[in-house]
Amino acid sequence: MAGEFSLIDRIRARVVRRGDVVLGIGDDAALLTPEAGGQLVVAMDTLNVGVHFPGDTAAADIGWKALAVNLSDLAAMGARPAWCTLSLSLPTPDTEWIDAFLDGFDALARPHAVALVGGDTTRGPLSVCVAVHGFVAPGHALRRDGAQVGDDVWVSGSLGDAAAALAQWTQGGARDTELRRRLDRPDPRLALGQALVTHAHAAIDVSDGLLADLGHLCRASGVAAQVDVDALPASAALRRAIADPGQHRTLQATGGDDYELCFTAPQHARAAIAAIARASGIPVTRVGCIVAGDGVVARTGDGAAWTPARAGWDHFAG
Amino acid sequence: MAGEFSLIDRIRARVVRRGDVVLGIGDDAALLTPEAGGQLVVAMDTLNVGVHFPGDTAAADIGWKALAVNLSDLAAMGARPAWCTLSLSLPTPDTEWIDAFLDGFDALARPHAVALVGGDTTRGPLSVCVAVHGFVAPGHALRRDGAQVGDDVWVSGSLGDAAAALAQWTQGGARDTELRRRLDRPDPRLALGQALVTHAHAAIDVSDGLLADLGHLCRASGVAAQVDVDALPASAALRRAIADPGQHRTLQATGGDDYELCFTAPQHARAAIAAIARASGIPVTRVGCIVAGDGVVARTGDGAAWTPARAGWDHFAG
Repeated sequence: MAGEFSLIDRIRARVVRRGDVVLGIGDDAALLTPEAGGQLVVAMDTLNVGVHFPGDTAAADIGWKALAVNLSDLAAMGARPAWCTLSLSLPTPDTEWIDAFLDGFDALARPHAVALVGGDTTRGPLSVCVAVHGFVAPGHALRRDGAQVGDDVWVSGSLGDAAAALAQWTQGGARDTELRRRLDRPDPRLALGQALVTHAHAAIDVSDGLLADLGHLCRASGVAAQVDVDALPASAALRRAIADPGQHRTLQATGGDDYELCFTAPQHARAAIAAIARASGIPVTRVGCIVAGDGVVARTGDGAAWTPARAGWDHFAG
Repeated sequence: MAGEFSLIDRIRARVVRRGDVVLGIGDDAALLTPEAGGQLVVAMDTLNVGVHFPGDTAAADIGWKALAVNLSDLAAMGARPAWCTLSLSLPTPDTEWIDAFLDGFDALARPHAVALVGGDTTRGPLSVCVAVHGFVAPGHALRRDGAQVGDDVWVSGSLGDAAAALAQWTQGGARDTELRRRLDRPDPRLALGQALVTHAHAAIDVSDGLLADLGHLCRASGVAAQVDVDALPASAALRRAIADPGQHRTLQATGGDDYELCFTAPQHARAAIAAIARASGIPVTRVGCIVAGDGVVARTGDGAAWTPARAGWDHFAG
């Protein structure tokens, strides 16, 4: 057990160093040198126990995920991450828990060279708020409002794994470690997002569920989308764990927390996008197209209308 | 009652507009144009119910204070605020509460032209995390580590009011509205901090208690400080509410949450600092001096050693 100041020292000892951090943890605020000519990209998201992660989640996984969901927002903008701040509320200042939390946080921060530059630790129910800062060349950000009629709709990786893990946890049945890893340690698609800035028209990360998030993108762009639910990419782990293809579709189309990228791009970019996917090692799949109108229509491969059994993930509806 | 998206719409409708916000609330992240040639200054602090504010605090006051404690960090750096992000955890999405919260938040954001550009709303115990972003000319930030032997130690405004209000609330006795206003609606000393950048050597805001915060400043600067507790500025409200001068001193020297500035400056800057105080309308008081060594020694006006009855405000010790 330790007071606030030794906790802060503990955190400060482990942060990633960057030349653009003039003054990091330890003053009233951080002093940072912005990238010359770049646009600053800022996202902030909180994870609360029992809402954003199951109560039995390991401290290291909470540390990873709190940073990952924020880096995923930067990925969806095509931004390069630089710095983050962390506000950690804990019932008790448990140094063992903190060290494990930082193990997970660092495991993601270090390969992406994200410097933790400030924030606070405070007493309260377990809650983790992270703000991330990155840069993008002016005019190059992947916004939600750029989708155009005729665009393909793409998704990265595979969908439904995190929702399947959550369902297994909620139902208390068999638990698949590969699925649970997708829920606990989402991999923000930063390299993919950065490579897409000159090809994609619009992007969003899949945190609420594909149909819900694509709906946000369509609303922002003033367009509609058609999605082929049979084309949605499923992992081998998902197919192994859940036999019913109807259940797959619902998890893939509506399950949250996958943190894949959903993006739209013109048809003439297909070869370029395939090359980017090969280079980044992240598969991408065409799952639909942008059309005039509003809303998202889901169909099965034979053209029949399809309606999900469950709505998107609203953090106030749970 | 409303879902997450209508809450966000409610918040978005009221934000301050700025020309340097390329894209605010509504995408995966905000897109911002940093001030050309400026250093970015970033602070983030969380307020939890029962830890940082009494459970009976009005929603509007929580909104004000959540922004104020962060702007106070920018004030202590001498920075000009620009943008903020807000992460709001609420047990239920109560639109009446949100509107009142935003009333208080806006009442402080608008006069300082601070644009709310992102964040999230989520379900959880009442908790408010705010990150603020501002700018300062390179090399001009007021850091904690610049104090020099021979400097005067100054504080702005008056000390002890917020702690007195908290003591009144805790003890359930008579309550003074002027003191309570200092606890609920601290006034970040932004204009004062910005004017001090060319005169002060070091600064910190008084959030943990003067002796504790001056101790942080001395540790960062590798110096010691002597403080005359009889010189600490007391408001008329404090003197009226609490008759015992011994009680005043303890509240003024160790009480947290005043969000005044404590700064050090060379003796030759006294006239300039007095002029800045007149221009900003915020009185400043010399309360001690920086000497060689380490630690903070408090004495009464007659030179006797003085020890506070209560330690500084540690958010994990409460």
